Amino acid sequence: MAVRIVLVGTTHPGNIGAVARAMKNMGFRDLVLVGPRYFPHEDATARAAGAEDVLDNARVVDTLEEALAGCHFAAGASARSRAIEWQTMEVRECARRVVVESAAGDVAVVMGPEKSGLSNEHLDRCQVLLSIPTDPDFSSLNLAMAVQVICYELRLASMETPEAQAPKVPPATAEEMEYFYRHLETVLTDSGFLDPDNPRTLMRRLRRLFIKSAPDRNEINILRGILTAFERSLERNSAK
Amino acid sequence: MAVRIVLVGTTHPGNIGAVARAMKNMGFRDLVLVGPRYFPHEDATARAAGAEDVLDNARVVDTLEEALAGCHFAAGASARSRAIEWQTMEVRECARRVVVESAAGDVAVVMGPEKSGLSNEHLDRCQVLLSIPTDPDFSSLNLAMAVQVICYELRLASMETPEAQAPKVPPATAEEMEYFYRHLETVLTDSGFLDPDNPRTLMRRLRRLFIKSAPDRNEINILRGILTAFERSLERNSAK
Repeated sequence: MAVRIVLVGTTHPGNIGAVARAMKNMGFRDLVLVGPRYFPHEDATARAAGAEDVLDNARVVDTLEEALAGCHFAAGASARSRAIEWQTMEVRECARRVVVESAAGDVAVVMGPEKSGLSNEHLDRCQVLLSIPTDPDFSSLNLAMAVQVICYELRLASMETPEAQAPKVPPATAEEMEYFYRHLETVLTDSGFLDPDNPRTLMRRLRRLFIKSAPDRNEINILRGILTAFERSLERNSAK
Repeated sequence: MAVRIVLVGTTHPGNIGAVARAMKNMGFRDLVLVGPRYFPHEDATARAAGAEDVLDNARVVDTLEEALAGCHFAAGASARSRAIEWQTMEVRECARRVVVESAAGDVAVVMGPEKSGLSNEHLDRCQVLLSIPTDPDFSSLNLAMAVQVICYELRLASMETPEAQAPKVPPATAEEMEYFYRHLETVLTDSGFLDPDNPRTLMRRLRRLFIKSAPDRNEINILRGILTAFERSLERNSAK
């Protein structure tokens, strides 16, 4: 089983190296770095301690959207509870879900910056939120430690879970969903339903709704077809 | 639930700090260091990152025997498989066992030096050997990463395991068992059964045997009484 590990905005390069080692220990090698503060860096290489190949093959990109290209399922790590209800799973249960989803296509686990964690905008691109049980009085896990626990659970989950069958129609990828959300936002704005001065909560709620429905490629094509039909009708009306 | 974490011969002080943080994240605070190369040390303090109290309260001792004082159950971490068969448990199962044993008295998890791991002499003082599943092609976990996974499993095991009842008679502690083994070795040597030129395998096999029987305090007193009776009989015979 392959799982992409995505680190967003990592500030300490030593943590990137420790993450590479933790991944390789558990049999994972696909590392993507979104805007790391320092990379490559000697601290990363030193802490990799035998996992330099994972660092060498790591891809560096500018946005989480690029990092999730091709993925239909992403779990975002989070220690805090959030205002809007994202679906939250503890790491053991989440690992089993990731293994099941990996039969349908590419999957990812997304880790935020050390201090702040993932923003709500990052979590908008994740299907579920992943939490690691800790002592509530001292809950701030080191980034690489968190990846170690997650990759350990992924390894155990992949060994215990019977091989799932790939679905007949592949799930929509992260890019296809983003195109859809942009299309939806445009149509909602043009129709006057979405107020551009205060658009955020509506789009987040719609994202959560469509994440729950987990559309496959055919379904997302139907939805985009509906949006296109609306667009044409709006254009005709405004042309009158 | 309290579990003592014992680090034997740690060479990198940064790892001691990272262990302290990993322990505290999961609600554990009892750290014992057996002959650390450098401690206290600024690298330990830096990596503790909020768990300096665990470092401040850590006890530094010279031998594993001192570190295990009062414990009746110790799990020794090991990546390698061993010549003589120690009972080996994977970390998830082992964590459940540690939780059950913690109802009867003090328990410990023992970690060896970074490079070499625990020696057979260290493992002689452990009831079971604990292993963490890894990719066999890259199985060398960082010390603090291993402690993180172990403490995570201990936390989950303590939350899911129903409170076990303390036994009526407490189990023999590590010290009581060591006194017994020394007494046994003396009597076996005096009787001529144990050849002092090649004593090792026999005592190790006997340790494994008595570890499996997990004697309580009454039972160990009976065994020591038997040894004393043998001793007197040997003295009488040699006096004739």
